[in-house]
Amino acid sequence: MKLRDLGEFGLIERIKQVVASDSPDVLIGIDDDAAVVRVGRSTLVVTTDAFVEGVHFRFDYFSPFELGWRLMAANLSDLAAMGARPLFAVVDLAVPADADAEEVTDLYYGMREIGARFGVRIVGGDTTSSPGRWFLAVTLLGAADGGRYALRSRARVGDVIAVTGWLGSSRAGLELLTAGGGRHRAEPVLEAHLRPVPRVWEGRFLVQRAGVRAMIDVSDGLSSEVNHLCRLSGVGAVIEAARLPIRPVVRELALSSGHDPFDYALHGGEDFELLFTIPPEKWADLSKRWTRHFEIPLTAIGRIVRPERGIVLLTEQGERELLPGGWQHFRSNTDAPDACELRPGERP
Amino acid sequence: MKLRDLGEFGLIERIKQVVASDSPDVLIGIDDDAAVVRVGRSTLVVTTDAFVEGVHFRFDYFSPFELGWRLMAANLSDLAAMGARPLFAVVDLAVPADADAEEVTDLYYGMREIGARFGVRIVGGDTTSSPGRWFLAVTLLGAADGGRYALRSRARVGDVIAVTGWLGSSRAGLELLTAGGGRHRAEPVLEAHLRPVPRVWEGRFLVQRAGVRAMIDVSDGLSSEVNHLCRLSGVGAVIEAARLPIRPVVRELALSSGHDPFDYALHGGEDFELLFTIPPEKWADLSKRWTRHFEIPLTAIGRIVRPERGIVLLTEQGERELLPGGWQHFRSNTDAPDACELRPGERP
Repeated sequence: MKLRDLGEFGLIERIKQVVASDSPDVLIGIDDDAAVVRVGRSTLVVTTDAFVEGVHFRFDYFSPFELGWRLMAANLSDLAAMGARPLFAVVDLAVPADADAEEVTDLYYGMREIGARFGVRIVGGDTTSSPGRWFLAVTLLGAADGGRYALRSRARVGDVIAVTGWLGSSRAGLELLTAGGGRHRAEPVLEAHLRPVPRVWEGRFLVQRAGVRAMIDVSDGLSSEVNHLCRLSGVGAVIEAARLPIRPVVRELALSSGHDPFDYALHGGEDFELLFTIPPEKWADLSKRWTRHFEIPLTAIGRIVRPERGIVLLTEQGERELLPGGWQHFRSNTDAPDACELRPGERP
Repeated sequence: MKLRDLGEFGLIERIKQVVASDSPDVLIGIDDDAAVVRVGRSTLVVTTDAFVEGVHFRFDYFSPFELGWRLMAANLSDLAAMGARPLFAVVDLAVPADADAEEVTDLYYGMREIGARFGVRIVGGDTTSSPGRWFLAVTLLGAADGGRYALRSRARVGDVIAVTGWLGSSRAGLELLTAGGGRHRAEPVLEAHLRPVPRVWEGRFLVQRAGVRAMIDVSDGLSSEVNHLCRLSGVGAVIEAARLPIRPVVRELALSSGHDPFDYALHGGEDFELLFTIPPEKWADLSKRWTRHFEIPLTAIGRIVRPERGIVLLTEQGERELLPGGWQHFRSNTDAPDACELRPGERP
């Protein structure tokens, strides 16, 4: 079967069957944002992300510095979703021989810049020539201190569903870039797209000090992530559209380009915010303490419900099923052209 | 400066300047076969390798199974050179949407097959679409038990230089494949090229129980690796051509295609054998014990000498400088066409 028919998730299922391990040292394999393994007395979290020129980025919009930043940020976001503390990174890079050395060092400066904020040291890698396009992969190791980490699969009926920061900003930033709006206005949404800040300390706080149940990072779009989390937890969810945290400038940009702001927030992806569930009594406590620690908002957007109820979105017009609208590799996607002709920067 | 002018090693030097870390937990950074980091009470070894279709392999010669095998083997070989015990792997894969799912699962079967021999479990990864070629990267974690590991930089004057197994076999296998000789004859050299077995247990034994000083794996060709090891150790070396372990079938294949068998052994690369130095008294002991543990040969091929002496090859015709003839990315290489028009399978 061709990959374009099987889709990314179908392929991952097949790969899981090949590599399945019953080792007691593999605590979490391919099912979550990152793998969790035991090494000696430590619990390590390992994640990796690949970026391909023409699929994940194009140099029209991304400088090498921004590209390095973004790739490292995407990996950090996966660790954040587990509540892990970042430690080390290794970098694989395939690049054409006619590239400038400065482009490559700028890429590393970008990775270093965002990595250093969270204590990441780049300790190794492999550099190789590529016959055409740039290909990058970053693998990041972190520690689950005290053996504590969050999973996608632990949501329970009655939990509050909450999200950090803002939704749809990255999508709005992309719109601005593709429309040639330049880098002069709406700086926060361009930042969100080009230099996103992963929620590493927030994720760590949520796991170590707030008692979250399930957590996932919003890289494929909120609708996709809610569906993942519910499927793996065996629950349903009710999301209230009116509660989705959308920046005013994002609403404005969406409407002015003929889009629905809710679509940006629900399906935009790449926001690198954290979506989590937490028991109601802990939510009350957390929402009080949050602003003492963090500047970004924290918003309750819904509830975990019984699985029979399904995954629904409440809007002014009533209730409708919330289908995953995020990005899936290989497949033709709902909102996006085929993977091989994908618009730049569409997906991390 | 363009990468083709700077060369791979020049680029690595620049990258090192960007990512240099003075963290006490980074024991070894970019200078060796793998990085060594401290996590809690464990000493971890981390290595990564990237493979690009058209640069490192072509599907004319490699089946997906063999490709997976070889990529995992290349990583295992880096851990072997440190004497580390392999633990976990993550895999990044970018593949065209019109590829068959079976090709991808075969790739994973290949990685699993050789990985399982050495206790590796594949715990995660990232799969993404590629607009054209296949890109692969494997990152492998191992443990340096007891905090012991080998480095390239510890050779001392007077050490015996020795090598495991055979040299030039992989190069002969490539010759056979490119000449269309088919898979019917000279099975050992085809195996060496398509399904190399990294010297993991040998490396571990050498570090934990034989007292080696410096070690490196022979992936870029013996001449290159001797030069690396001597440069990093600040020593010279005398290599005796007559002692190089070359299989009779490799001599035969080299001669019949108009090549010098010594060139295969010295510059062929991809043999994934271990090159190491050891004090003479320990060598005597090791060479006696070796055959009780391993079936492959172990051969003394020279001595570490004072740096003023240089790095020389002794042949029947006398002495000459042993220049690195192995592969370097981005550059036009001595024996090979430019990276971007590289012959398939030339370099891992």
